[in-house]
Amino acid sequence: MATKDSKAFVKDITPMEEDFAQWYTDVIRKTDLVDYSPVKGFMVIKPYGYALWENIQQFLDRRFKETGHENCYFPLLIPESLLNKEKEHVEGFAPEVAWVTHGGSEPLGERLCVRPTSETIICSMYSKWLTSYRELPYLYNQWCSVVRWEKATRPFLRTSEFLWQEGHTLHETAEEAQKETLQMLDIYREMAEDLLAIPMVVGRKSDREKFAGAEATYTIEALMHDGKALQSGTSHNLAQHFTKAFDITYQGRNGDLENPHHTSWGASTRLIGGVIMVHGDNRGLVLPPRLAPIQVVIVPIAQKKPGVLERAEALKNELIAAGIRVKLDDSTSNSPGWKFNEYEMKGVPLRVEIGPRDIENGVAMVARRDNHVKESYALEGFAAQMQTLLDQVHGDMLERARASRDEKTFTFETYEEFKQKMAETPGFAKTMWCGDEACEANVKADTGVTIRCIPFEQENLGDTCPFCGKPAKEMVYMAKAY
Amino acid sequence: MATKDSKAFVKDITPMEEDFAQWYTDVIRKTDLVDYSPVKGFMVIKPYGYALWENIQQFLDRRFKETGHENCYFPLLIPESLLNKEKEHVEGFAPEVAWVTHGGSEPLGERLCVRPTSETIICSMYSKWLTSYRELPYLYNQWCSVVRWEKATRPFLRTSEFLWQEGHTLHETAEEAQKETLQMLDIYREMAEDLLAIPMVVGRKSDREKFAGAEATYTIEALMHDGKALQSGTSHNLAQHFTKAFDITYQGRNGDLENPHHTSWGASTRLIGGVIMVHGDNRGLVLPPRLAPIQVVIVPIAQKKPGVLERAEALKNELIAAGIRVKLDDSTSNSPGWKFNEYEMKGVPLRVEIGPRDIENGVAMVARRDNHVKESYALEGFAAQMQTLLDQVHGDMLERARASRDEKTFTFETYEEFKQKMAETPGFAKTMWCGDEACEANVKADTGVTIRCIPFEQENLGDTCPFCGKPAKEMVYMAKAY
Ligand SMILES: [Zn+2]
Ligand SMILES: [Zn+2]
Repeated sequence: MATKDSKAFVKDITPMEEDFAQWYTDVIRKTDLVDYSPVKGFMVIKPYGYALWENIQQFLDRRFKETGHENCYFPLLIPESLLNKEKEHVEGFAPEVAWVTHGGSEPLGERLCVRPTSETIICSMYSKWLTSYRELPYLYNQWCSVVRWEKATRPFLRTSEFLWQEGHTLHETAEEAQKETLQMLDIYREMAEDLLAIPMVVGRKSDREKFAGAEATYTIEALMHDGKALQSGTSHNLAQHFTKAFDITYQGRNGDLENPHHTSWGASTRLIGGVIMVHGDNRGLVLPPRLAPIQVVIVPIAQKKPGVLERAEALKNELIAAGIRVKLDDSTSNSPGWKFNEYEMKGVPLRVEIGPRDIENGVAMVARRDNHVKESYALEGFAAQMQTLLDQVHGDMLERARASRDEKTFTFETYEEFKQKMAETPGFAKTMWCGDEACEANVKADTGVTIRCIPFEQENLGDTCPFCGKPAKEMVYMAKAY
Repeated sequence: MATKDSKAFVKDITPMEEDFAQWYTDVIRKTDLVDYSPVKGFMVIKPYGYALWENIQQFLDRRFKETGHENCYFPLLIPESLLNKEKEHVEGFAPEVAWVTHGGSEPLGERLCVRPTSETIICSMYSKWLTSYRELPYLYNQWCSVVRWEKATRPFLRTSEFLWQEGHTLHETAEEAQKETLQMLDIYREMAEDLLAIPMVVGRKSDREKFAGAEATYTIEALMHDGKALQSGTSHNLAQHFTKAFDITYQGRNGDLENPHHTSWGASTRLIGGVIMVHGDNRGLVLPPRLAPIQVVIVPIAQKKPGVLERAEALKNELIAAGIRVKLDDSTSNSPGWKFNEYEMKGVPLRVEIGPRDIENGVAMVARRDNHVKESYALEGFAAQMQTLLDQVHGDMLERARASRDEKTFTFETYEEFKQKMAETPGFAKTMWCGDEACEANVKADTGVTIRCIPFEQENLGDTCPFCGKPAKEMVYMAKAY
């Protein structure tokens, strides 16, 4: 959609068709979302990037509280002996934790790991606190950063430190724990669709891909422009794996000592990577309106002419009063053309242009970032029209993302066809699967493709597993993944 | 004020006159604010304690944004070489940092410290980013946790990890940096008075007590029930100490390469300790209304009688609609008397009792936590009356804290008198001081008392320093401190 001229302006952003990874890197750097830090694999989240996270936090925190959860804070450092208590958990996480060995100048008696996730420290506290069924459920969440030592990192997608929330709940019955697990997954799905305008495939992870120590992991999975999947939020039913290992007990209704049922669930700054890779284009970011730190930018035209700045200022205040996040860029050091390009690159959903002739005609020009449509709107009742338009943009972005995902979702007959399609037009492969971990591992070793999820919405695509020929057990979504 | 009966109920809280430290520990444990964790010196902030922090965060974050600051996030881990760049800074912090030496199973090439504060890592980024005076000022803040290895810890007051915010700004001129330093100090003072109902002494730290690497540190200091002071928020003018050490330069207006002027400022979860020790009494917490997670608790009386719960529910909804944080405790497992004691201990500002006779009379009984006054209020226009009453409670608590502080503030003639008063009726000693660091160090070694601040509001109390007899330079507040 970009003309030659505008392409020249954004020449620092590599076209995504040419090199998707480079396009991603260019976009996050040019738009000032993050920067690399002096510590390898650790990123700095700059204000424009952090504002996105604040909006995600706000949405989720509100929904967590509406569903009865409370926030708290557990220590950053976890004694090695605690990490070791749940066998699968330590095997999963020990290879990627950072170890604190000295406090001040003194060596520690026991190594402490910087939390990679907090099940172990939280369970050690729950075991101390819980006494009776009357205290259940425990519905707690914390907002914090976690550290997982990574060799190959990419901003937002995979970094050695990232920001997230982690919910940790205890319940009297397995049914309640399962209900909570699915409720929180659905809140993630709702957030992805209603805030990020990203449609999700929702389902369960295969045993091979589940959380270390979980009975079952549920996930929301999104498809990026390049046909790779992004795991965007997970909710784990931990059954009694940790509550037994940590000896969390309570007196049940019938007087017996019981282990509670346990869930945990998390979403992180990696969601921002998803927003970039689902909505972005060759001119830069395209931000969904409800997430955008600036929803409307006003660029005055011929701003030295009498009355222009005053009218632009009044328009700004009208939009602010309507609860719209707005910026008026009245700087004189840059031309309107420069500003158009700048805010386009930064993904601001709506650009309002207002000059002397517009004012005379009682209108302003409004350009949509998502589809480049530019139309004139009456200044009368402007804020209400912009609210409607922002909702329209949100809906259109969600539908466009859905169409793009569906277009990249394919079925196939043979393993050969699968490999060919994954190589030529990658995306979600919908297929029957035998349910055998060895079969799954073979496909991964052979192609790099993994089972992203076993969707709740099952379809019957056939009777045999196309990879091994054994009888099919269920339908799965497969893809290469970030 | 407690009767014998009620004293029996709260028998687990040691009277503060008997043992203030034990009283403090009892209050925070009995009211479920925090708990000790398996990692020595690290605490768990439980939901009721964390809700206090969320309200402090909300107040400060709003004020930071209103004054043009943006949030961002810098890495948790700082390379040792960066920490070493500013000489005074490393000397101040190196003895109390936690060192990460291994990532996964591999030893690191360079040790990384868990941030004790982030000047060094942030300056390393600023040095990479800043190019021109046009980009100034930098007005950034981050919310995070920091680690400072402590030998003797007390929940909220001194822990090896705590939650805080740290602002880090860069300015073109020394005047702007000084203005920013004082502006942020004033926001802390405003928060303390308007949210926490704690009056503050506001001033500058002596050179001996200032931040490691600062040109000048400014502070707000509160006085606790036991006559000890609590440093409650600090704002540092760092001049060009760090910007030179980290080679942060920009092209100035006249084309020369300049070092910007630098500030940092922080407030932490220790404020919660201040709230407990300024307002609490022998029955437990007394929370200032604007900070309280629950501002009004409704306890229905004879709740099985027809109409009582319905009326209580309606009252709750009326209060919620008015923006008041309210809880209706209609549990049947506890008696109203038990509930009265429970919410009194938890410091809920207002308790509303409503029973059949009240409803008949169109009234409800309202008990204030702060002064134990219990009065009847008309149900007509109830929410508006409660809003007024909550503001009244806030004002009264602030004035009571001010009176208590002033009562514990004394002047004296001789060093002997100073020592006697500090031993018998400790508090703030207002005194002239010679300005000599050695004199200050002597008094500290001799008495444990330190200069808390050199207040902006100076008085002339005499011509000589009562400690050493040399000519007086300025008036200071001295106290034992947490
Ligand atoms: Zn198979
Ligand atoms: Zn002296």
